[in-house]
Amino acid sequence: MENNYFMYNEIHEELKILNDYKKREDFLSIKDEILSFNPCSFMIASRGTSDNASVFGKYVIESTYKIPVSFASFSLFTWYNSYPHLERVIGIGVSQSGETQDVIKVIESFNNAGSLTIGITNSISSTLAKISKIAFHLNAGEEKSIAATKTYFASLLFFLGLANAFKKVVDFDSITDSVSHVFYNSNIIKDLVVRYRFAKNFIILGRGFNYPNALEFALKLRETSLVNAIGYSSIDFLHGPIASLSSETPVIFLMPKDETFPSNLEILQVLISYNAHVLVITDGEVPKGVLSFNIKGSNTLEYPIAIATFLQLFSFYLSVEKQLNPDKPERLRKVTYGI
Amino acid sequence: MENNYFMYNEIHEELKILNDYKKREDFLSIKDEILSFNPCSFMIASRGTSDNASVFGKYVIESTYKIPVSFASFSLFTWYNSYPHLERVIGIGVSQSGETQDVIKVIESFNNAGSLTIGITNSISSTLAKISKIAFHLNAGEEKSIAATKTYFASLLFFLGLANAFKKVVDFDSITDSVSHVFYNSNIIKDLVVRYRFAKNFIILGRGFNYPNALEFALKLRETSLVNAIGYSSIDFLHGPIASLSSETPVIFLMPKDETFPSNLEILQVLISYNAHVLVITDGEVPKGVLSFNIKGSNTLEYPIAIATFLQLFSFYLSVEKQLNPDKPERLRKVTYGI
Repeated sequence: MENNYFMYNEIHEELKILNDYKKREDFLSIKDEILSFNPCSFMIASRGTSDNASVFGKYVIESTYKIPVSFASFSLFTWYNSYPHLERVIGIGVSQSGETQDVIKVIESFNNAGSLTIGITNSISSTLAKISKIAFHLNAGEEKSIAATKTYFASLLFFLGLANAFKKVVDFDSITDSVSHVFYNSNIIKDLVVRYRFAKNFIILGRGFNYPNALEFALKLRETSLVNAIGYSSIDFLHGPIASLSSETPVIFLMPKDETFPSNLEILQVLISYNAHVLVITDGEVPKGVLSFNIKGSNTLEYPIAIATFLQLFSFYLSVEKQLNPDKPERLRKVTYGI
Repeated sequence: MENNYFMYNEIHEELKILNDYKKREDFLSIKDEILSFNPCSFMIASRGTSDNASVFGKYVIESTYKIPVSFASFSLFTWYNSYPHLERVIGIGVSQSGETQDVIKVIESFNNAGSLTIGITNSISSTLAKISKIAFHLNAGEEKSIAATKTYFASLLFFLGLANAFKKVVDFDSITDSVSHVFYNSNIIKDLVVRYRFAKNFIILGRGFNYPNALEFALKLRETSLVNAIGYSSIDFLHGPIASLSSETPVIFLMPKDETFPSNLEILQVLISYNAHVLVITDGEVPKGVLSFNIKGSNTLEYPIAIATFLQLFSFYLSVEKQLNPDKPERLRKVTYGI
């Protein structure tokens, strides 16, 4: 039974998490602290799934509160001891467990520089939460599956909630509709994965606000279905990697009908001309004969949330189809310490 | 014959390029312009191979002139028209052809904001060179092979030359020794690739200043040998992707004896414990029985240059071993326009 799996059940808690975020008011005080610090830039420290959510955060921060966002090059802090001046930079650490050692090390460096630090964790008693000047609790409930799902979802919501505090950019009710629509179509997803039972390599393409989902989709497939999957920005894929595309490699293209849709449609035509197998995730019109899954339309910043739920369900069903255990990928631990 | 290939000949021009960079004096005036602009941060716009060189640039800039470096999220400029404030940010565009449309679009946005812009190209008559306030000519000579090699090499040297203008961090003579050593051992590389003739997937690991080389190695293998190759930071690899590692997948680990060596050695032990096939590129001591290729030791910022030459030769020889044409990867064009 599907609901014997933590991963399945945890994905299904996402509507409840959405409901919680609708009511949260702590974003306003975080906004005030950011404004009073008046940063030159943000720097995010994160690993794995949290890092993918943070790429979404970069797009949201740069397009809404308009401050450049960089990512911490960890080894400059942990090994080379030679990192940039941080006095005018806000440090954001994202770690579900709050115990990722190198994230903690970076945030400590920001604290030493007297900067503002924000720790995003799903454990309010964690080290990261304790040392950050602002600790944001993802409040997603305990995550028992090793493959992170609802905490990724909640991390995306953090960045949207914060953006809303600056200027209303998304409507959480509308996101709820889109996510519900994905759950409602679970059986279609379950049927879809059957054809990928024997695929060994996946290419996942996304762009703009859905580029982070492409990265996360690939990571989730690797972790739970043990396949070689790579996520690319659709345009970066044309700059080299497309050379290695073979007809044995399915491409999954996340291309909701947002501002990037016409351009992605051109890229899709290139893929079709190479006889690639493509599954398109969209609410826009696709060329005849191309396999697609419909996501319910909403606005540019809202789409990625429904797509996050989709990619998690797809990964779950594929793992089960392959008779693997999605909850316990070989070789992975829940808390990954930096070495 | 090997020297019937542009790619082979172009890699072999790298010692001449090094010689040219030893004498260049334009770095000092670029330094003065940077100091007088007094930036809050840098933002780099680049694609493909240039993007990998720019990741090296981020490490160099952050550790030497200590200013945070972010990467342009292109679609914010090209499609969403909603990007961060750029007034206090220096824009660096890197494009070998100087005609990559989305790089040009980003640099135009910096110009409109009145910021300082630096264009790094191998064509001084290109659009990017013309619109940038400072145009830096890579001066690598025409590159006829579609797979970029000597321009990647020259782009790495740009960032080191600029760093040297702030504070002497590398010695170009010492780099010349290391690169010569790689060429001297070409036959060992040629022998090595034989065992990878039938490998379909590669994992390339690198860390810190050699993380960019891991990304570039994977891209070069995809482009010229049409295999599935992915580059990871060695520590990021542990955060999920390691789940999908199989004994069929060779791992190539770039781990020179710099500050990250002891930590990478721990990661190597993890890989060995999973019975992975690993080829280690290092001047440090590796556990008994592990396959390795020796790079001649120099300092932290100098290693990556010799490793760049190594990864290009390796990719070239593997492509020839597979009876492919390394000069003309299917589906690729020399100038990749953004769509």
